[in-house]
Amino acid sequence: MKDVKLVVIGGDAAGMSAASQARKRLGPDRLEIVAFERGRFTSYSACGIPYWIGGAVGELDALVARSPEAHREAGIDVRLRHEVVAIDVENREVLARDLVGGGEVREKFDQLMYATGASPVTPEWARVPAAGVFGVQTLDDGTAIQEWLDGEPARRTAVVIGGGYIGVEMAEALLKRGLDVTLLEKSAQPMAKTVDPDVGTLVAEAIRREGIKVVTEAQVTGLATTDGRVTEVVTPTGSLPADIVVLGLGVRPNSELAAAAGLPVGPTGGVRTDRRMRVAGTDNIWAAGDCVESHHLLTGAPVNIPLGTHANKQGRVAGINLAGGYATFPGVIGTAVTKVCELEVARTGLTEKEATRAGFAFVTASVESTSRAGYYPGASRMTIKLIAERRTGTLLGAQIVGKAEAAKRIDALAVAVWNRMTVEEMTALDLSYAPPFAPVWDPVLIAARKATDAVHAAM
Amino acid sequence: MKDVKLVVIGGDAAGMSAASQARKRLGPDRLEIVAFERGRFTSYSACGIPYWIGGAVGELDALVARSPEAHREAGIDVRLRHEVVAIDVENREVLARDLVGGGEVREKFDQLMYATGASPVTPEWARVPAAGVFGVQTLDDGTAIQEWLDGEPARRTAVVIGGGYIGVEMAEALLKRGLDVTLLEKSAQPMAKTVDPDVGTLVAEAIRREGIKVVTEAQVTGLATTDGRVTEVVTPTGSLPADIVVLGLGVRPNSELAAAAGLPVGPTGGVRTDRRMRVAGTDNIWAAGDCVESHHLLTGAPVNIPLGTHANKQGRVAGINLAGGYATFPGVIGTAVTKVCELEVARTGLTEKEATRAGFAFVTASVESTSRAGYYPGASRMTIKLIAERRTGTLLGAQIVGKAEAAKRIDALAVAVWNRMTVEEMTALDLSYAPPFAPVWDPVLIAARKATDAVHAAM
Repeated sequence: MKDVKLVVIGGDAAGMSAASQARKRLGPDRLEIVAFERGRFTSYSACGIPYWIGGAVGELDALVARSPEAHREAGIDVRLRHEVVAIDVENREVLARDLVGGGEVREKFDQLMYATGASPVTPEWARVPAAGVFGVQTLDDGTAIQEWLDGEPARRTAVVIGGGYIGVEMAEALLKRGLDVTLLEKSAQPMAKTVDPDVGTLVAEAIRREGIKVVTEAQVTGLATTDGRVTEVVTPTGSLPADIVVLGLGVRPNSELAAAAGLPVGPTGGVRTDRRMRVAGTDNIWAAGDCVESHHLLTGAPVNIPLGTHANKQGRVAGINLAGGYATFPGVIGTAVTKVCELEVARTGLTEKEATRAGFAFVTASVESTSRAGYYPGASRMTIKLIAERRTGTLLGAQIVGKAEAAKRIDALAVAVWNRMTVEEMTALDLSYAPPFAPVWDPVLIAARKATDAVHAAM
Repeated sequence: MKDVKLVVIGGDAAGMSAASQARKRLGPDRLEIVAFERGRFTSYSACGIPYWIGGAVGELDALVARSPEAHREAGIDVRLRHEVVAIDVENREVLARDLVGGGEVREKFDQLMYATGASPVTPEWARVPAAGVFGVQTLDDGTAIQEWLDGEPARRTAVVIGGGYIGVEMAEALLKRGLDVTLLEKSAQPMAKTVDPDVGTLVAEAIRREGIKVVTEAQVTGLATTDGRVTEVVTPTGSLPADIVVLGLGVRPNSELAAAAGLPVGPTGGVRTDRRMRVAGTDNIWAAGDCVESHHLLTGAPVNIPLGTHANKQGRVAGINLAGGYATFPGVIGTAVTKVCELEVARTGLTEKEATRAGFAFVTASVESTSRAGYYPGASRMTIKLIAERRTGTLLGAQIVGKAEAAKRIDALAVAVWNRMTVEEMTALDLSYAPPFAPVWDPVLIAARKATDAVHAAM
């Protein structure tokens, strides 16, 4: 006999973080937890898939932070291969389909955790039933790619469509697997949503140097197939041979189920929640992860940023709250980092385009410096770009491109953005210095100085 | 015919940063600059000396950021081997002694930049005239050590007295030169002023593993010499053979000259300035670098923290102001980092001892995590310790010990301390995440979570 029953929809980062947090606070005698997951895995690192495909990570198991068995040992009733197809808010009940055994189950809930994640964007042309075309969203997707690559070693040509960070990481992974890789990007440079064009150009150069063909301003109109298998990617300027096609066109939040149940979905397509991750206007219905929209702390606008780090934080917050505690997820500032071959790329806050769209007037400053004192062995060059509001000098955004030890500097900049620091105040920041770690003026400080000059010049 | 004349006392980081900034704003037709330096070098990285001694840096020249010739080309009249011995504030004049040619010169000034640096602490027993005993404060000191080591390869035994970061870095450098090295530290663990005992113990273990003998709670009572050369370090529990003795007992600000001229010297022994680096109560006399005292932003107390990064910032601020601009140096929060063998050690804010002395009640939390996702190749373990004020949860301090990619995380924590963040707010920080850079919960966030729990538990 339990006091309360929690049903979780989605067994990955957000859902199972919530379940685990709730379990930590309320034992099995107090809280019953049932978790439906349509795939075969729980609590895994989707971000790690490219590294597993590329061979840097040896085993699939390594990507699983917590297996279904481990969750079950904690008294969480995990039901794999079960897809929730309807939520009855009024009767506090979900309807799930058993994808293996067939049939349906109904489950009552007192508390509901909605954590359905996101699905790859698939344009019309990608919806043909062609084997060899993959998204990279779930561990099941990753497993399918591995099986495809292992299946017939003769498959040597890969086309990755979409030059966002998933696309770029997958291009590198496939290159490492010995494939001939072409990356198609519709913008003028890869990572166009992540970084400004000047920084994106540095990324393009780096991945071309590694041997990946990069086609920018590319338009895909279709996929050609033979015997149900993809053979070519069709573009207006000709077709590209393709034994495997990976879609890296971004994802969209899985909010249809919520919408069908009458739960509020915001302009980004994500489920709307308050800062405690309670679904707006509901009682004891919570949501977290790729399927929700977050508050952008700089623009005040809703955003959907599908990242494991947000999913974990939001899931934890939801779990604390639904178990009677108090925690909040105030919002995001758009921090992201990726490693492409030897290149490290990071950003926080707003890009120029995002700042303009939000109505900011701003100045920018870019500096080149080194990761360590110039004379210290292993020093490597990096570029830091700062975007600061005109007049106030408030730091609006930062981008870093470099090699080893460059990108993690974005965290200091993220904390500065978070706290609305001005670039002038940042010039005085007491950052760590020793020759193995930085020049006597850390690149962050040099950038802050140059940005301060730019703010003054634009007064 | 110049408008204004600036005299600089001390040709290293602080003094020459000030001179260079002033020069950038006022050309040689507007500002005459004379800089006196008692040594043979200008604008060098004293922090780089251990790496030069140890062989990681090949050439002395690499440590010189700007040579006297380069300064002269910028129209700065650098006078090496000239020691200023008196300042006549009323008559706006300094008296300098020519250490090579002999004789004295007088120089009038409109603006005076006081940047005399610091000198190694030398207890009574260290003041015997013994060859083979060295401080590590100036490039001249570094050159003397190099010559001593190169001179007679038979010298194989080194004793480093003082386990602060200079002592520890020099111990490693001498080990790399093939010497048998003993490090004597009067406290219970090395780096006792830098990190808490629990963290210091990790440092001691790491340097012992590398092959450095570490003697803690050591007391030195004298040096034994033969033919004017040091041969032994004498302690109450016996003597240690020593072909070379390096003093790493800290430094004290060179403020005697200022005091003799009636300039204010604070309780730390450093010259007192305002936030524009103007010497308190004076007109157009400025000071910066190891010789001044700074404002600690957390305790509000004056501190003297001799670090190149502060010297450069303060010198820049002084230079901007003395040339008619406006810049401030608001204070410090005690950030520091060092690399000892493979170990990275970093801190910011207050240690437990410092927090106690300042009257704070606090909780602490230590976590172990990894630099990268656990499954990603090259992930290494690190420990992060946070100190947070009771009740408010304000982050008071942080310490990190780890291997590659650990220590620079202190910068994000330093920006958090700077902005008086609470550990609870920090749990929501949008820090960068991707498997090559962090676990999905960055160690900083895990530490913030644990510290938040500790704050709640102590409510």
